[in-house]
Amino acid sequence: MNSALEKAGILVEALPYIKKFAGKTVVIKYGGAAMLNDDLKEAVIQDIVLMKYVGINPVIVHGGGPEINSLLKRVGLESTFIQGLRVTDEATMELVEMVLAGKVNKEIVARLQRQGGKAVGISGKDGGLIKAKKRFELVKNEAGDRIPTDIGYVGDVVKIQPDLLFGLIDQGYIPVIAPIGAGETGEAYNINADTAAGEIAQALEADKLVLLTDVEGILRDRNNPDSLISSLQINQVEPLMEEGILSGGMIPKVRCCVEALQGGVGTTHIIDGRLPHSLLLEVFTDQGIGTMVVK
Amino acid sequence: MNSALEKAGILVEALPYIKKFAGKTVVIKYGGAAMLNDDLKEAVIQDIVLMKYVGINPVIVHGGGPEINSLLKRVGLESTFIQGLRVTDEATMELVEMVLAGKVNKEIVARLQRQGGKAVGISGKDGGLIKAKKRFELVKNEAGDRIPTDIGYVGDVVKIQPDLLFGLIDQGYIPVIAPIGAGETGEAYNINADTAAGEIAQALEADKLVLLTDVEGILRDRNNPDSLISSLQINQVEPLMEEGILSGGMIPKVRCCVEALQGGVGTTHIIDGRLPHSLLLEVFTDQGIGTMVVK
Amino acid sequence: MNSALEKAGILVEALPYIKKFAGKTVVIKYGGAAMLNDDLKEAVIQDIVLMKYVGINPVIVHGGGPEINSLLKRVGLESTFIQGLRVTDEATMELVEMVLAGKVNKEIVARLQRQGGKAVGISGKDGGLIKAKKRFELVKNEAGDRIPTDIGYVGDVVKIQPDLLFGLIDQGYIPVIAPIGAGETGEAYNINADTAAGEIAQALEADKLVLLTDVEGILRDRNNPDSLISSLQINQVEPLMEEGILSGGMIPKVRCCVEALQGGVGTTHIIDGRLPHSLLLEVFTDQGIGTMVVK
Amino acid sequence: MNSALEKAGILVEALPYIKKFAGKTVVIKYGGAAMLNDDLKEAVIQDIVLMKYVGINPVIVHGGGPEINSLLKRVGLESTFIQGLRVTDEATMELVEMVLAGKVNKEIVARLQRQGGKAVGISGKDGGLIKAKKRFELVKNEAGDRIPTDIGYVGDVVKIQPDLLFGLIDQGYIPVIAPIGAGETGEAYNINADTAAGEIAQALEADKLVLLTDVEGILRDRNNPDSLISSLQINQVEPLMEEGILSGGMIPKVRCCVEALQGGVGTTHIIDGRLPHSLLLEVFTDQGIGTMVVK
Amino acid sequence: MNSALEKAGILVEALPYIKKFAGKTVVIKYGGAAMLNDDLKEAVIQDIVLMKYVGINPVIVHGGGPEINSLLKRVGLESTFIQGLRVTDEATMELVEMVLAGKVNKEIVARLQRQGGKAVGISGKDGGLIKAKKRFELVKNEAGDRIPTDIGYVGDVVKIQPDLLFGLIDQGYIPVIAPIGAGETGEAYNINADTAAGEIAQALEADKLVLLTDVEGILRDRNNPDSLISSLQINQVEPLMEEGILSGGMIPKVRCCVEALQGGVGTTHIIDGRLPHSLLLEVFTDQGIGTMVVK
Amino acid sequence: MNSALEKAGILVEALPYIKKFAGKTVVIKYGGAAMLNDDLKEAVIQDIVLMKYVGINPVIVHGGGPEINSLLKRVGLESTFIQGLRVTDEATMELVEMVLAGKVNKEIVARLQRQGGKAVGISGKDGGLIKAKKRFELVKNEAGDRIPTDIGYVGDVVKIQPDLLFGLIDQGYIPVIAPIGAGETGEAYNINADTAAGEIAQALEADKLVLLTDVEGILRDRNNPDSLISSLQINQVEPLMEEGILSGGMIPKVRCCVEALQGGVGTTHIIDGRLPHSLLLEVFTDQGIGTMVVK
Repeated sequence: MNSALEKAGILVEALPYIKKFAGKTVVIKYGGAAMLNDDLKEAVIQDIVLMKYVGINPVIVHGGGPEINSLLKRVGLESTFIQGLRVTDEATMELVEMVLAGKVNKEIVARLQRQGGKAVGISGKDGGLIKAKKRFELVKNEAGDRIPTDIGYVGDVVKIQPDLLFGLIDQGYIPVIAPIGAGETGEAYNINADTAAGEIAQALEADKLVLLTDVEGILRDRNNPDSLISSLQINQVEPLMEEGILSGGMIPKVRCCVEALQGGVGTTHIIDGRLPHSLLLEVFTDQGIGTMVVK
Repeated sequence: MNSALEKAGILVEALPYIKKFAGKTVVIKYGGAAMLNDDLKEAVIQDIVLMKYVGINPVIVHGGGPEINSLLKRVGLESTFIQGLRVTDEATMELVEMVLAGKVNKEIVARLQRQGGKAVGISGKDGGLIKAKKRFELVKNEAGDRIPTDIGYVGDVVKIQPDLLFGLIDQGYIPVIAPIGAGETGEAYNINADTAAGEIAQALEADKLVLLTDVEGILRDRNNPDSLISSLQINQVEPLMEEGILSGGMIPKVRCCVEALQGGVGTTHIIDGRLPHSLLLEVFTDQGIGTMVVK
Repeated sequence: MNSALEKAGILVEALPYIKKFAGKTVVIKYGGAAMLNDDLKEAVIQDIVLMKYVGINPVIVHGGGPEINSLLKRVGLESTFIQGLRVTDEATMELVEMVLAGKVNKEIVARLQRQGGKAVGISGKDGGLIKAKKRFELVKNEAGDRIPTDIGYVGDVVKIQPDLLFGLIDQGYIPVIAPIGAGETGEAYNINADTAAGEIAQALEADKLVLLTDVEGILRDRNNPDSLISSLQINQVEPLMEEGILSGGMIPKVRCCVEALQGGVGTTHIIDGRLPHSLLLEVFTDQGIGTMVVK
Repeated sequence: MNSALEKAGILVEALPYIKKFAGKTVVIKYGGAAMLNDDLKEAVIQDIVLMKYVGINPVIVHGGGPEINSLLKRVGLESTFIQGLRVTDEATMELVEMVLAGKVNKEIVARLQRQGGKAVGISGKDGGLIKAKKRFELVKNEAGDRIPTDIGYVGDVVKIQPDLLFGLIDQGYIPVIAPIGAGETGEAYNINADTAAGEIAQALEADKLVLLTDVEGILRDRNNPDSLISSLQINQVEPLMEEGILSGGMIPKVRCCVEALQGGVGTTHIIDGRLPHSLLLEVFTDQGIGTMVVK
Repeated sequence: MNSALEKAGILVEALPYIKKFAGKTVVIKYGGAAMLNDDLKEAVIQDIVLMKYVGINPVIVHGGGPEINSLLKRVGLESTFIQGLRVTDEATMELVEMVLAGKVNKEIVARLQRQGGKAVGISGKDGGLIKAKKRFELVKNEAGDRIPTDIGYVGDVVKIQPDLLFGLIDQGYIPVIAPIGAGETGEAYNINADTAAGEIAQALEADKLVLLTDVEGILRDRNNPDSLISSLQINQVEPLMEEGILSGGMIPKVRCCVEALQGGVGTTHIIDGRLPHSLLLEVFTDQGIGTMVVK
Repeated sequence: MNSALEKAGILVEALPYIKKFAGKTVVIKYGGAAMLNDDLKEAVIQDIVLMKYVGINPVIVHGGGPEINSLLKRVGLESTFIQGLRVTDEATMELVEMVLAGKVNKEIVARLQRQGGKAVGISGKDGGLIKAKKRFELVKNEAGDRIPTDIGYVGDVVKIQPDLLFGLIDQGYIPVIAPIGAGETGEAYNINADTAAGEIAQALEADKLVLLTDVEGILRDRNNPDSLISSLQINQVEPLMEEGILSGGMIPKVRCCVEALQGGVGTTHIIDGRLPHSLLLEVFTDQGIGTMVVK
């Protein structure tokens, strides 16, 4: 009986958070470690379904990661490189799209459905969700000048048309989105999943954007997990970059958060996907997990 | 962090129950000990608000108990008795109604509101919810014959008109109902709260009727709490009464459950209101609390 | 046949007024003499039901008057006074609430229902309708200075949350409101019924606020009923007060009208509740009854 | 003030009838004397607008009467006759339609609008409301046999398609219908207005069908207005015809009532259109006007 | 099979136009030659029904033309003239209304219905659609001054109340409107059909206003059909009038277009109603027919 | 101008078909030759978008055909065979799903979007659309007995849950469905596309099921295209099979039609996808293309 009472206590403790987020939209970039380990996968899925059942509207944008490389290898497709940047040619893009929209996307949907969630998997082509255009990376030429360079079917978001998402949410579905954009003539572009999540969060006027990553959050000292910066304001970002505390792969993630905040998203979170149920803990406890970036 | 993970685990464990009862209607007869002790009061209120937030539609029917007697005593109203049955004359009924609809009812509403629930307190007069008529108790006369006898403004339910409840539920409110019925000319009748709850559960085609009582449930041996009968089928009721295991105040409660089941209610529960969060435990754990009566 | 034709004539005469107010909201402060005499009660109730049936949305705010004192006396509660102001202590407030929300409110509902109206009785606690805070009266201390003084559970309106009222009106109900407000922790405050009616009229953007009183309206000469001021503009109020024509209990009523007008209510009316069907006459005849205060 | 109170009394007396018919549909055949005299016209129009404002849904089907003959005369169109039956040839039908749909119909609409009603005038061609086919009257030939005979564009109702009416009623309009039916190829047929009203009442599942006529109702003794039969059951109709009490032009009217009743209309009424406000009196007083035919 | 493929090709060619106008409102002034010849009539009707079926909302305003004169002649009504302007006295207006609302209007409705369109014919009296007032033409008096002169029941539009039209369109009907306006007391006024169409187009915020006329459009050289001005901007109108290229009956038509454009209509078109299916060609081909006037 | 008039004529000729199918649901199995040739692809896409724009609700179920084999070959996956039946092992199924849901599906969506259609591509996993279970083919064992044999992830439809489709159609989208079913634990099954289309047509209560094939339809004499059976009744199917006229791959297609008809689909069509716009011609011309199977 004791443990039963304890359970009751914990459920009651969640009440304020449930109240706070009822009816709110939370966009989750799902990727990294949380997509590899089967237990972590199930934990994320349970978290999302639970969020849905207590009245939150989660929207999932996923990456593809290792599955893409694995298929490229299997079909023996060798990539071309320009100054170290991999070129996504048409043949590669075709495989990227297959993996993202045909495998990863549908696996997430199937898991959500099995856990009792109603989910629909789409890509940015569906309902004209993500309009994209070719991205030109600034690549140094021989003279050392940075010149916009065609690296294939990698795209920037031109516009998000969120009607389909509103429709699916209204009908009680959890949208699961493969970050593929469609160009003028319908050609597919590979969009960075963090970017896609951020843009979609803005178009939906989401209350939260959560990036599931493979780090604890932003650390003041990279080697000391206790140095976690749990909350960060927009105007602290530049100084932290100058100090070198924000660096490497964390920079684009933080930039994505900043843009989302400027575009009207309530709060943004960089959390540790390696920790089981980090998503649930972020949403349903005060202490929080990882780093929150706010306006 | 450990305790955080534990919390996540418990929230996730509740998921199947949340899924199971999403959108379901649960009518709760709230009375007895759970209305006296302040901690128990808060626990019940939290349970109800939590139920609402995870998508259940709770409907509360409350008793009045000691508060009524306390007011009767304060105004010095002495009751008449017919063969031991207290007569609810007009002056008494006036005070009963004031306590039920003006004090107990509004206190529950205020507590629910403070916990973040949206609640509306009504009596059976409102929107014509409970149509009632005078009840004639069978009272032994001098010759020893049981004769229907007028014991004042105690009523039987003639009809439940649930439109107002559906309207309030649709708008997201928790209806809190004082068990007062209205007669032909609008006169008030005191209705037994268990009966009112059962009739309302039928009219709402509720999935669950829960009676909060001051006992553990039905015990096979009154002196042994371990002899709890955790589940009971309709056809076992008569034999148990003949054996004397079902007796006293438990009989009308079980009858109320049986009628509710026959009227289409999914399951009915007699649970121990003295146990904090017994309501939550009943709904969100498998083991269950008290006795469930089913078809 | 003649009388039938006469009836037809009168019904037809009402047509322009019915047209004028179709779909409009009229907030009625119901109190005073019209709550004492049984015939007057029935007349008011019939007027309100008729208004509802011809397409007007009446909203009732009632006082409690003599019934409160009667109960205080019965339970032998003696009031404390501060400089002549009665202090509403917790025990008193409890009884006030019982009478207002549990007796007067439900009697009005029952009468409306019996006349064929669909009515729902609530207090300001329900659905968070009236948020209130303690009122500090300015009371002279020994030095003669007016100091804000705690006189118990008498409240000022902090905010009206009219969602519940809109919901009830949409479903065809006549809301009947006991002027009880809820403080931060859910504690009850007694709110002046005129004030509550005025605030609710503003929150509902009502077309009319009608205060049923025990006088003919505003008289230029208190002793001459023929000196009735049938229409008054906001800017005439101050001069009339300076002249002493507006005085005593009429001042807060007129102030309540002025505030309602400034808050967007169409017209306000102080009418004589001692006259049977004065409400109906006010709404359905040109001549008008009592004093209309307009912008 | 006295007369004001009297007015209030009469308005209150109407309340039970207003309640009884709230939301009900009443189909009114408007014709005869009530279309000739200007005061009678205004009285009928006021009655209909009042009905609409107190929540009844009136639907008007009108005749054309003398206006048709007047135009035929003006254009000098001479009618052909077959055995005493006037033949409605194409040229005549064209004029009939112009008068009904272009003059009488629009005059009624303009009067309703001026009295504050929202009205829309249509004919049976609009929205495919009345599908009709040529009627063949049984006409005696020289041999004395009754043979189905072509008398031109006089039609029988094949089907009522009431969608347009439901749409207009939903939007708060009073439909005003010219009894023209459309044949297979869109050709116009003149439909008897009583018949059209009866068929439309059935298609709308109306609660009342009222035929405004130029007689007091059905008289047991044609010369004695006091011999009015105020209520008649379907099974009394045949006997009354055999007795000769029902005869002449009253027979098709009663038949129309009987068919409407058999088709699901609640009650049917033959009332005296020469009496001002007879419509209002029929609906809003108990005594009733004319003869009611019921199942 | 070949011709089948050709058909497919043509249907596919229409796709871009169908897409472009899906859900758009097109107000069509229907008059002139297209109302005389039976083949032209059918072509116009087919065009309108087709427009409706592919998702456009056509609204028809029609003239009456020769039919009015024909009836005036038949009844022998001789017109009075003031300085060459025909006076529309009450007797004339009665006949005008009958022809427009009772004959021409219903014929169009019947034809649309027969072609499978759902149509409802109304006049400006219905639902208060066209509020009008007497028009005073400037007529030269003996002194040569232009003085506003009463020429009878010819009206100017005071206001369009488009609710009825929105309601009919929502229900899938094609509204067909006789250009009759109603004055203060409900009296009918004859409104110029072009003007009525232009005003209605503004009130509906239509995307297109199409005037079906009896000329090719605006010709630079009246005698050379090849000199058609296919597109005209508002600011070119005055110069063209000064040059004398725009003259006679074309001036009010162009003015009507200019006002419609200034009132928010998308594009306006003066097209040749003598050409079969000119309406369809205007809407579904790029080249266009007649003259388009744009902002 | 001539060709313009011709176009108008052809558009008008389509009107009856547009009327006939307005609001109807047409399920199209898209596969075979029509998926290979780029011109044919575009023609099918245009046909579907046109159908949508003229008010039909097309639903697409597609196959994958040669693309699957091509990918299997590229990754070097060699198939196992049981008695000549290819076994779809887990690795194969993974690739099949990627091609169907990630490549073919999204290409169709992108093409529809580019032509102006709003399309959403899903698989049977999404929203629980296709519940499936493992199919056991009857395979001859050595003893020659036909024994149910596990051939891997090839599935039978257990249930279609069409809610998602209704939702998408309501919002104006064209659903494009990859025929993947989800088993109990979310595992993917390859479903025959014809079968999936037939089952979905039944669940949607579609008016038409169209199977795009690579033959002219059912030929009485396989070598004579002029021997096309343009219409076939259910009861003629068995005799034709006995005669050997129905044989080979046509048998399952006809069976699929028969089941759809028995499940409530209006008409079913086997048409020649090699003919450009055969879909449009089937729907918009009388002659019809291919073989229609009807009840």
